[in-house]
Amino acid sequence: MDRPASPRPLRSPGGFPVVGIIGGGQLARMCAGPAAELGLTLAVLADAHDASAAQVVRCAPVGDHTDVESVLSFAADCDVVTFDHEHVPADVLAALEAAGAILQPAPAALTYAQDKVAMRTRVGELGIPSPRWRAVTSAAQVADFGAQVGWPVIAKAPRGGYDGKGVVVARSPEDAAALLAAGPVLLEEKVVFQRELAVLLARSPSGQAAAWPVVETVQEDGICTEVIAPAPDLDPHLAALVTHAGLRIAGELGVTGVLAVELFDIDGEHFVVNELAMRPHNSGHWSMDGAVTGQFEQHLRAVLDLPLGSPRPSAPVTVMANILGGEHEEVYSAYRHVMARDPEVKVHLYGKGVRPGRKIGHVNVSGDDPVALSARARHAADFIRGVIDE
Amino acid sequence: MDRPASPRPLRSPGGFPVVGIIGGGQLARMCAGPAAELGLTLAVLADAHDASAAQVVRCAPVGDHTDVESVLSFAADCDVVTFDHEHVPADVLAALEAAGAILQPAPAALTYAQDKVAMRTRVGELGIPSPRWRAVTSAAQVADFGAQVGWPVIAKAPRGGYDGKGVVVARSPEDAAALLAAGPVLLEEKVVFQRELAVLLARSPSGQAAAWPVVETVQEDGICTEVIAPAPDLDPHLAALVTHAGLRIAGELGVTGVLAVELFDIDGEHFVVNELAMRPHNSGHWSMDGAVTGQFEQHLRAVLDLPLGSPRPSAPVTVMANILGGEHEEVYSAYRHVMARDPEVKVHLYGKGVRPGRKIGHVNVSGDDPVALSARARHAADFIRGVIDE
Repeated sequence: MDRPASPRPLRSPGGFPVVGIIGGGQLARMCAGPAAELGLTLAVLADAHDASAAQVVRCAPVGDHTDVESVLSFAADCDVVTFDHEHVPADVLAALEAAGAILQPAPAALTYAQDKVAMRTRVGELGIPSPRWRAVTSAAQVADFGAQVGWPVIAKAPRGGYDGKGVVVARSPEDAAALLAAGPVLLEEKVVFQRELAVLLARSPSGQAAAWPVVETVQEDGICTEVIAPAPDLDPHLAALVTHAGLRIAGELGVTGVLAVELFDIDGEHFVVNELAMRPHNSGHWSMDGAVTGQFEQHLRAVLDLPLGSPRPSAPVTVMANILGGEHEEVYSAYRHVMARDPEVKVHLYGKGVRPGRKIGHVNVSGDDPVALSARARHAADFIRGVIDE
Repeated sequence: MDRPASPRPLRSPGGFPVVGIIGGGQLARMCAGPAAELGLTLAVLADAHDASAAQVVRCAPVGDHTDVESVLSFAADCDVVTFDHEHVPADVLAALEAAGAILQPAPAALTYAQDKVAMRTRVGELGIPSPRWRAVTSAAQVADFGAQVGWPVIAKAPRGGYDGKGVVVARSPEDAAALLAAGPVLLEEKVVFQRELAVLLARSPSGQAAAWPVVETVQEDGICTEVIAPAPDLDPHLAALVTHAGLRIAGELGVTGVLAVELFDIDGEHFVVNELAMRPHNSGHWSMDGAVTGQFEQHLRAVLDLPLGSPRPSAPVTVMANILGGEHEEVYSAYRHVMARDPEVKVHLYGKGVRPGRKIGHVNVSGDDPVALSARARHAADFIRGVIDE
């Protein structure tokens, strides 16, 4: 049979818990290996039978994350429920809480990952540096903000955006018109920065927290293409400031599980917060091969309130490069080639069909020299993508 | 539903292959994470719905590995078939080959892992050092061999033994009587040795091979309890001899996938071969956390004839300690304690019910000092087992 009924979670012996993840994308998929090693049972509520995580998890019922009944039925089998994405509606979260489900992170925290205006307000209250921003509903307000901070400005849909979607660089109020037609818009000054950084950490319900080293992220067209861990030549004082900000945000907002804070490094000494995510994050994929405890294992430990693992890097430098979909659906021969060319490259694929620009996997490579590692990681990713052929 | 029909393998897009493993124990289970990361589909023929691997693999039909029809039906969905254990009978292997299944290792190689007399004969032909041995069928032959090599002698059932089962230390012909009643017996001299070593390597069908560093293994009552990688203070010349012997055995016997060769280190300069296994092996569990490429990923790459990954250790020393079942079924609280006590310990559990002496998991810990690492690994394993409580 090609579409079997999905089983209930098959609990392992000895009282080990079942972790349910709402959403069946690659972040849920990459929890599967660590869950198996930890002796945990993983269940995934996927949007399709062949979703990335559903391919590799035994218990993966298909259901709509916006449908209260589907989500409640799923959660009834889980000891804790966590998330592959930020898109579960508030009413569904409220129904889960009312039904007694243990949600990690809790809706009160998750709202800051779902609503960029709420995030900007709260991070500002904490005194943590942010770009100048304003929530607006009219073109006149856009014009006013642009006159105040200078054009262009960044216009964002407060909810639902990712990988550059829902974000516009507005050079005039007209550029924000389409976003405004859909509802309130978050305006931010366009920050001039040296580079982008991210700090990733995990926090457990009992308040234990562990941060990985601050990383440098490289974006192209709004999509992360490369991460260098730790960020090369980062001033230790700035690293400490950024890590402290991440830990404060996690504590003050009540985050549980993995938190990613993306930042702009203004001048090597100052930063502003760009975005938050309360789940494993692309900026932490390096940790799967480059740290004692990878982000997917750590997320599982955190949401279960298990003691956290060491975030210590296991190599001086690890570079991650995302593999984006190219023009060719068949990538197996390129993947073979990459393995043959560089036996130290760790290839991670998500079981997703190729579409141009879609994240279909990533590679990690560890060593000493960030420049050389970056070249190797990029070569491997670009070769699998098909944009180079030697 | 608690006992769903098992689905056919859900192939990932882009022509990625399906690897089938006959047997659903922990070795198959530990392939699940690497298979997901490599974008491969894993299928497991398990002996029970709740077998170790069946808990974490989406496609895990229940079937008897000695039943031709079950095995053929399973293999029909797989691009390559490999093994969690040595116990698939020759007639089943022959039927698979006749049906066109791709078996890795092939039956012609696997026979040397299934039949210890065949192994002793072939390794001897290669001029690789072995204990003195003889295949016998009578008590008189046992007496003759004991008189020749000195008592006690080691008597082994040629087939089906593991973890010390099927092995007797015979101080007289009478001690081998029970084994003789079941068929021919392999007698070996009782070797006086300094310590036990193992060399683990992988070989692909096209002949590429990659060996991990030689490790020291510690056995108690015939069960491996600890592995130190690399073997401390191993003479480089002996390491090279042992590695060369492993690579020769793999090549000459046509082994594909992971090969483990267990050896006795006689005097720091000489060795004899003890046992072979043609699959991931307990002596390689350290590599999951201590090498660029772990043995489960490497086995998958090898059986698919993908280029092999680097076996380079990612830390100076990694120590593995097996977690054996103790008196208590509930181990979750001890596992929490171990995580809290030592955030660098990597805990791996197999989803198996606790029975005294049964291997239910292992821990790895990496660092610089083998003595300190051994103490930490042993403490964690013993604590989870319940033989210490602080």
